[in-house]
Amino acid sequence: MKQYNRRRFLQAAGATVLIAPLHHVSSGAGGHNGRKLNIALCGLGVYAQILADGITASKFCRLSGIVTGTPAKAASWKKKYNIPDSNIYNYSNFDQLAGNKDIDLVYVVLPNSMHKEYTIRAARAGKHVITEKPMATNAADCEAMISACREAGVQLGVGYRLHFEPYNMEMKRLGQEKVFGQVRLMEISLGYKADDGTGWRTHRALSGGGPLMNLGVYCVQAARYVSGEEPIAVTAQFNPIVNKEVFAEVEASITWQLEFPSGAICNSTSTYTAGVDRLFASAEKGFFELSPAISYGPFRGRTSEGTFQFPEINQQAAQLDAMAATILAGKPLPAHISGEEGWKDCRIMDAIYQAAKSGQKVYIG
Amino acid sequence: MKQYNRRRFLQAAGATVLIAPLHHVSSGAGGHNGRKLNIALCGLGVYAQILADGITASKFCRLSGIVTGTPAKAASWKKKYNIPDSNIYNYSNFDQLAGNKDIDLVYVVLPNSMHKEYTIRAARAGKHVITEKPMATNAADCEAMISACREAGVQLGVGYRLHFEPYNMEMKRLGQEKVFGQVRLMEISLGYKADDGTGWRTHRALSGGGPLMNLGVYCVQAARYVSGEEPIAVTAQFNPIVNKEVFAEVEASITWQLEFPSGAICNSTSTYTAGVDRLFASAEKGFFELSPAISYGPFRGRTSEGTFQFPEINQQAAQLDAMAATILAGKPLPAHISGEEGWKDCRIMDAIYQAAKSGQKVYIG
Repeated sequence: MKQYNRRRFLQAAGATVLIAPLHHVSSGAGGHNGRKLNIALCGLGVYAQILADGITASKFCRLSGIVTGTPAKAASWKKKYNIPDSNIYNYSNFDQLAGNKDIDLVYVVLPNSMHKEYTIRAARAGKHVITEKPMATNAADCEAMISACREAGVQLGVGYRLHFEPYNMEMKRLGQEKVFGQVRLMEISLGYKADDGTGWRTHRALSGGGPLMNLGVYCVQAARYVSGEEPIAVTAQFNPIVNKEVFAEVEASITWQLEFPSGAICNSTSTYTAGVDRLFASAEKGFFELSPAISYGPFRGRTSEGTFQFPEINQQAAQLDAMAATILAGKPLPAHISGEEGWKDCRIMDAIYQAAKSGQKVYIG
Repeated sequence: MKQYNRRRFLQAAGATVLIAPLHHVSSGAGGHNGRKLNIALCGLGVYAQILADGITASKFCRLSGIVTGTPAKAASWKKKYNIPDSNIYNYSNFDQLAGNKDIDLVYVVLPNSMHKEYTIRAARAGKHVITEKPMATNAADCEAMISACREAGVQLGVGYRLHFEPYNMEMKRLGQEKVFGQVRLMEISLGYKADDGTGWRTHRALSGGGPLMNLGVYCVQAARYVSGEEPIAVTAQFNPIVNKEVFAEVEASITWQLEFPSGAICNSTSTYTAGVDRLFASAEKGFFELSPAISYGPFRGRTSEGTFQFPEINQQAAQLDAMAATILAGKPLPAHISGEEGWKDCRIMDAIYQAAKSGQKVYIG
């Protein structure tokens, strides 16, 4: 039963961050005081396309650059988004970003295990960084990323889009404000059927793990933002692997249980064997639930008193605008979308894997 | 990791049962060929009242007797249901049922730990028996009950009302007929807030355990009737106890994971700390769900293709009529509501408790 040394790291993480000034301020219409944040997307996979659409729909962001190792992608993105050659990078000349005043921030959308390297290199090039979730494949890598950004005086955010999504924020409010009393039980699961093995997500060297890494991180996040607590212990179970050829390197399905100081628990599954998408919390006086909850919507909410509805939004645009407005104003990103937040989730995922491998309860210090 | 010897017991359980003839056939109108099954309720708690209403609403049953240790209850039930003094028993003269041809069947609605004794005594008195769930507080007691009924040539059923409830039977059909393909993930939970400690359910000597005994048995049953499989392994976790005064003897909340031969899993919670009532199954091509699922209704069903609806029924009347029609016809009760079925669930619950206590995965042989 390993004790994670939380206090030591949080103290370090709490040190004052000196934030670099923006190198360049564009004057596009409709921006924050007329300004927009110039973003380079690093990695042009499926989610980068969704983010590009979010940037297009945003008020305060501009897609000013791209980083890709695939010349064909460079050509098509250049044409589609009118990106100058001087703002198109590959993984060899990436560090030359340092001299490019037309790029304020690098948004890392690479496979999980590459978040660390490109976050650190972007920071050393003097660029603010947003990295997709999971922040890294383990907490130690998160610590290195946080340190590099702190040393470079740049901001580091994690793409936790659901902090800008009305249904999830309602769940957070209902939980943390104890609208139905103290939360006692959470059931938060996310899965989809992906046992054909396409893509990098089943290759450990790139993904760092199976559905826990890709999907479980949302469940861990949600358990924390609904309860408003940090888990103190975890048990976990690798589930039977149905397709052993595809899942030779990572789990196909995993279940875990988080214990919180109040006595609340969260029982979760993340899986590539079947679809599930639900955030449920039951408290002393009633329950509240989203299903679907975590995907890109449309969501569906209910409580023990009835259903509820919010407008569907462009989650990526909402996230990007909130982050951009903060960075443009020279303010530090709020804690719940910071690198420290990503570190907290990765530390819990480290403990989940340790518990599943050992079959023992793991305490999170 | 204990191996439960399943084969040995199932072989014994499969032995031919000689069924006793009905002692008495009443000639009430509207019955099965004009006959009704004469039932004595043994134990007059909250659920006995619900069963009495079910008997009243049934076609083939008559409330002909009662067994109670409380004279005031005897008096009020006598008046309300017009029960003759000769059919009113207490726990001392219970065995005199043997000579009473006006009672065909004893329905045991006592606290869990008393099911064994009164099932065996009823069998020895030559009466058919239905016992409430859980059949007993452990599998060994179930074996003794099955043996006693076999020796006495009487039938033994368990009050699994959901086998006569349309929503649950639709879930069974969707799972077992693989309408959405092979089931991969089940999430089945049942809980209610009951941490005031009233009643016998928190006293181990009567209940045999906490919410697993009372509520979890439904989840175990449902996992089996939806998947159509028997679990081969289980992990389990006792959850933090919030009110230690009330839960000094039994768990307040428990989570567990069942593994099935196909690779399907079921992740469940049963709890007295908060409300939850859901049966969810996700298969290769879609999901199907009830929530509420297990309580007395009204239920609410949906699949990945949309919502579905059935008429709400009197679950107790449906169960009682189906059981009575079978017994009146001199046929053995079907396997899924038999004592062997109750034994299967208790055997799994034994393994769940063993896994939770030891922290080890327990294999069910």
